[in-house]
Amino acid sequence: MVSDKKKELTEEELDARHADKMRKKKAARDKIMATKTIEKGLLIVHTGKGKGKSTAGFGMVFRSLGHGHKVGVVQFVKGRIETGERKALERFSDLVTIKRMGEGFTWETQDRQRDIAAARQAWEAAKEMITSGDYRLVLLDELNIVLRYDYLPIEEVVEFMKTEKPEDVHVIITGRNAKDELLEIADLATDMTQIKHPFRSGVKPQEGIEF
Amino acid sequence: MVSDKKKELTEEELDARHADKMRKKKAARDKIMATKTIEKGLLIVHTGKGKGKSTAGFGMVFRSLGHGHKVGVVQFVKGRIETGERKALERFSDLVTIKRMGEGFTWETQDRQRDIAAARQAWEAAKEMITSGDYRLVLLDELNIVLRYDYLPIEEVVEFMKTEKPEDVHVIITGRNAKDELLEIADLATDMTQIKHPFRSGVKPQEGIEF
Repeated sequence: MVSDKKKELTEEELDARHADKMRKKKAARDKIMATKTIEKGLLIVHTGKGKGKSTAGFGMVFRSLGHGHKVGVVQFVKGRIETGERKALERFSDLVTIKRMGEGFTWETQDRQRDIAAARQAWEAAKEMITSGDYRLVLLDELNIVLRYDYLPIEEVVEFMKTEKPEDVHVIITGRNAKDELLEIADLATDMTQIKHPFRSGVKPQEGIEF
Repeated sequence: MVSDKKKELTEEELDARHADKMRKKKAARDKIMATKTIEKGLLIVHTGKGKGKSTAGFGMVFRSLGHGHKVGVVQFVKGRIETGERKALERFSDLVTIKRMGEGFTWETQDRQRDIAAARQAWEAAKEMITSGDYRLVLLDELNIVLRYDYLPIEEVVEFMKTEKPEDVHVIITGRNAKDELLEIADLATDMTQIKHPFRSGVKPQEGIEF
């Protein structure tokens, strides 16, 4: 009996077994997808210590731009919209609006009051973009960092998303250490978990990869 | 003593404490970054069950295109380069080459032999792109799925990356269930971990978000 179980399948048997398995998978998937009928603007959060939070946010921005949607981007941390992304977005200047808070939070300064004022200014710009009716998608890049340092009250952001964000606008919020209150109200949340990082082996930040 | 610890700091004290903390953080960061001196083509893996694997891969593609680098994309799973990305990439037709394996793996068919032949064809195209000297970055979208089903031997892919991939080419491999052998040789690996997914509340795939 044991040898029966172990017997090698012929290529034909493998193919038939595979076809059957895939047919069942497809049927199960089709059945599930048929129940998904709601369309709505999503609140999306990318957090975690790994790479890819802003990168996937900008990936969604480009996807949306590809569809011809208008997209807004607010940068909460100075210099975090990298050269490569900025230059790539220039080819979509008909569709994308970027708000860079020139005085934004940065590791280079230690001026808390200025950072708080910059966070407030960026947040006001964000609210205006989201409620304007002009954009299908708004990326709030690194908002989580500002919230983490309590430069903006999380209650205010949550309240806005719950009551003032229009139903049909997608909002993406990135940055590590997302607050629980934000994850609570998110429709889609992903934790970019670091498995391996090249800095560990002495590799420096490189054009096209880190910036 | 307890009341001492609890005493409220003035805004000025908070600012001073913050400035000091940030100064130390910056010093620590500068010191670490000074040790990062190596430049090399990275092998990057995006895996996990959460969203953002391909999206972050394409985010890197756009970043690299922004810098004016030539980029190659090989699609291992049919229809996985979504409409939005495809249209956005059209604005960079001077820099990007996309190989779509028309007969690629898909949930819609159950033909294993055809899938194996398509995987092989895509892999040959990938190797050619990577070794051609024409591209700074090559994205192998959803290669992990093909490897998971053993449509390509993982040993062959590992051996190629170790011995034939030119030093200065970045390669990104996406897809869930990355094989351990691949993570072993990766320079940078991230697991996109699902916290919350909108399908759970009946929301359907939407333009600009899922495609």
